[in-house]
Amino acid sequence: MGPRLRGRSTLRTILTPMHTLIRFAFLAMCFGIVSSSLAATPPGVSYDSVAIRLLESGLRNCEAFQMLKELTSHAPHRLSGSPDAARAVDLTKKMMEQRGLNKVHLEAIMVPHWVRGPVEEATITRSTSKKGTKLTICALGGSVATPKRGIEAEVIEVKSFEQLRTLGESAKNKIIFFNRPFDPTKFNTFETYGGAVDQRSRGAVEAARAGGVAALVRSMTHVIDDVPHTGAMGYVDTVKKVPAAAISTLDADMLSKLLLQEKNIRVRIQLTCKTLPDTPSANVVGEITGSEKPDEVIVVGGHLDCWDKGQGAHDDGGGCMQAIEVIQLMRKLGVKPKRTIRAVMFMNEENGNRGGKAYATAPERAGEKHIAAIESDRGAFAPRGISVQADSSVLAKVQAWRSLFERMYADRIFPGYSGVDVSAIVERGAAGFGLDVETQRYFDYHHSDNDTIDKVNPRELELGAIVEALLCYLISEEGL
Amino acid sequence: MGPRLRGRSTLRTILTPMHTLIRFAFLAMCFGIVSSSLAATPPGVSYDSVAIRLLESGLRNCEAFQMLKELTSHAPHRLSGSPDAARAVDLTKKMMEQRGLNKVHLEAIMVPHWVRGPVEEATITRSTSKKGTKLTICALGGSVATPKRGIEAEVIEVKSFEQLRTLGESAKNKIIFFNRPFDPTKFNTFETYGGAVDQRSRGAVEAARAGGVAALVRSMTHVIDDVPHTGAMGYVDTVKKVPAAAISTLDADMLSKLLLQEKNIRVRIQLTCKTLPDTPSANVVGEITGSEKPDEVIVVGGHLDCWDKGQGAHDDGGGCMQAIEVIQLMRKLGVKPKRTIRAVMFMNEENGNRGGKAYATAPERAGEKHIAAIESDRGAFAPRGISVQADSSVLAKVQAWRSLFERMYADRIFPGYSGVDVSAIVERGAAGFGLDVETQRYFDYHHSDNDTIDKVNPRELELGAIVEALLCYLISEEGL
Repeated sequence: MGPRLRGRSTLRTILTPMHTLIRFAFLAMCFGIVSSSLAATPPGVSYDSVAIRLLESGLRNCEAFQMLKELTSHAPHRLSGSPDAARAVDLTKKMMEQRGLNKVHLEAIMVPHWVRGPVEEATITRSTSKKGTKLTICALGGSVATPKRGIEAEVIEVKSFEQLRTLGESAKNKIIFFNRPFDPTKFNTFETYGGAVDQRSRGAVEAARAGGVAALVRSMTHVIDDVPHTGAMGYVDTVKKVPAAAISTLDADMLSKLLLQEKNIRVRIQLTCKTLPDTPSANVVGEITGSEKPDEVIVVGGHLDCWDKGQGAHDDGGGCMQAIEVIQLMRKLGVKPKRTIRAVMFMNEENGNRGGKAYATAPERAGEKHIAAIESDRGAFAPRGISVQADSSVLAKVQAWRSLFERMYADRIFPGYSGVDVSAIVERGAAGFGLDVETQRYFDYHHSDNDTIDKVNPRELELGAIVEALLCYLISEEGL
Repeated sequence: MGPRLRGRSTLRTILTPMHTLIRFAFLAMCFGIVSSSLAATPPGVSYDSVAIRLLESGLRNCEAFQMLKELTSHAPHRLSGSPDAARAVDLTKKMMEQRGLNKVHLEAIMVPHWVRGPVEEATITRSTSKKGTKLTICALGGSVATPKRGIEAEVIEVKSFEQLRTLGESAKNKIIFFNRPFDPTKFNTFETYGGAVDQRSRGAVEAARAGGVAALVRSMTHVIDDVPHTGAMGYVDTVKKVPAAAISTLDADMLSKLLLQEKNIRVRIQLTCKTLPDTPSANVVGEITGSEKPDEVIVVGGHLDCWDKGQGAHDDGGGCMQAIEVIQLMRKLGVKPKRTIRAVMFMNEENGNRGGKAYATAPERAGEKHIAAIESDRGAFAPRGISVQADSSVLAKVQAWRSLFERMYADRIFPGYSGVDVSAIVERGAAGFGLDVETQRYFDYHHSDNDTIDKVNPRELELGAIVEALLCYLISEEGL
């Protein structure tokens, strides 16, 4: 995009057309937004002015990003039970207190405590070459360790559990290599993830059932690179626990090619991860107490824990900082919501959802009525709308506010999932909401060393907070 | 975002809730899209199936990105008249030929030829310190050089031309430092740019008018960093030509602070840029010829030239590669449009728009009727819709196709500007269209060393091509 300047050196030819064009362009671009805003019926001029003030105030300082910088630099590896998770609890409590949130407190919970351990290695050990070829892997969250000297076995590649089941004897004592890639043809990257993640979550169980000795799972990403993506996996009591690791997409492709070219490819895997006893931790809670109906609560939150790769900047540091920013924005603007708006940093979404469940059932909830629970956990990208997990009357009510979200291009309001952390609150009757965002880049970063603060744009992060703040405010004033 | 896995080790507790939730989440998320697609009246099932095939085929290979990699690695600095611009002409002609476009040819034009020169430096030369403080600057495109030993003068800061005009004698013989920052409070970053860019385009003229000896202009970006952003500026015949440079936002803030603390801050600027005689260049043109009305033409394009900083990946290598990809996608799918769809790589948008004007008036246009001209020049980000520069009947017609663009979240169809390159075609009666995209990040990169291929997401780039292809196809079948 150029300046709409002409090359000639005379005042009239340079300046007049340029200005006419710029003026036309920008007025016309704005007109597109404004005209349709006016076309809809806004619920009230005051809501519109609150929306504008939230937008301008938020974008002026982009404070959610300042907080996220603090969180990711002081507590990057916030896996449940880790020292960084404990640090994050202290830090976000302090952030809330410094920003004048009401009733800041911790709600104690016990969380699972899995640690990666110092060694995670995989090597192709072909008899033809003395030095093995290293593969880039990382343990999946929850995996057992290998024996100390590792597991060495022949590798067999499958694309699905169905295919694995047809292998019979030939899967026995093998390392089962789950290599069904992300389907690139889908627009919705979460749908793509949903179509591949069974390999990660259930791969170890299915591998063991087939007689395999370990599971090696293609990383959950569109990108072909050398960065493995971790994430939760599970075992079942009735099936032997075999170790499970993610392999980078680059090495998955390489290994797959090799398996076509050579027979009896063997890999040795060493993992030193382990599960320690459950550990004390906490949800972090603060609010702006409602001026008229303080016992009616709107929760806005994200999860404070993250995987021990990268910094959990998008997943879900951003969602947590947005929740604090929602309340900070209201306080700054002197907005006094009728109902209580409460920011919750949920602990342990990634490997247990203990925080979400504990919050919903805590003794503190007695006497409170949760009418809505909003989660931001799809990455700190530009918002595009709100998914509504509630009955059709709630959906209709929120859709009637659509025009208020249009100036932030965040007016897609559709039935959909809210979020893992708030699911227990939603099960108990609250309307659930998920912040919907631009998600083409999400799985480039998700659960990997790529999920760092430099991948977050301060304005996009802030816009998410602004959309959540506006939604909280409208619900607090209008009810549901 | 976690796996919706539970922490406990029994099959039922892990797998059942997880699957139920995933299934619910993704079905519900999809339902949001599907239901509203069905609610609108699609113009015909076949258009919908073309839309789906374009989407799936495009996302499967993301070929626009492969082409962009080639362009940005072989010809990164494509300023008009430069060797890289010539290389880009050859390369894109070859790309079109290799991909089987019809009637691939060059249309020769003469372009301005400005070169940056090896030296561009600025130093604060305070009497109190012997070694001056270096400032990060770059010449603005079109600037004259300084005298060989540079220009040294006292600096005076202004926020607007109005303020400058009030200074009278005190601006004489000074370096005029235009330091009005981007307004962060606006959502629309192009509107923000429009509110600041007069400093860059007209700063030198206004500085000279006030008796100043040079213009130092704050870079056109939201980001505070040490990367200067270039861009076009102009002179007028009746006013002395003084040199003009952009200063990084970090150093602009530093200098501004210093000016508050100390009096008589002096800066020495050295620029060796110059304007050479006009140089031969070309627009690159290729098409898929219409099967029924070959003389009715729909142009889709971007500009092949870019500034000599970074690689012009977003501005506007992406727009060019998308235009070639539009036609490649149609050929791959065996789509035979009724009207001609023509990809044009326009030369010289950044500092003259010679290519756009030459294309519209070339002898080759005789006997052709241009019904539409589509430009992508707002960055290769995720598309959000289409701005329409045409009368209300055209707008209404395109808005009736809205539901076809909804599955790519690109269904904002509103009156607005098309693009500089196609403006001469639009002036001659064609309907103009601009690909509207997510633009929060655009000015982080624009006209600077930051505009490199690693800032482009292959899927977002491809989605833009898919949206353009669908729009081209609908216009080719339905007319306007």
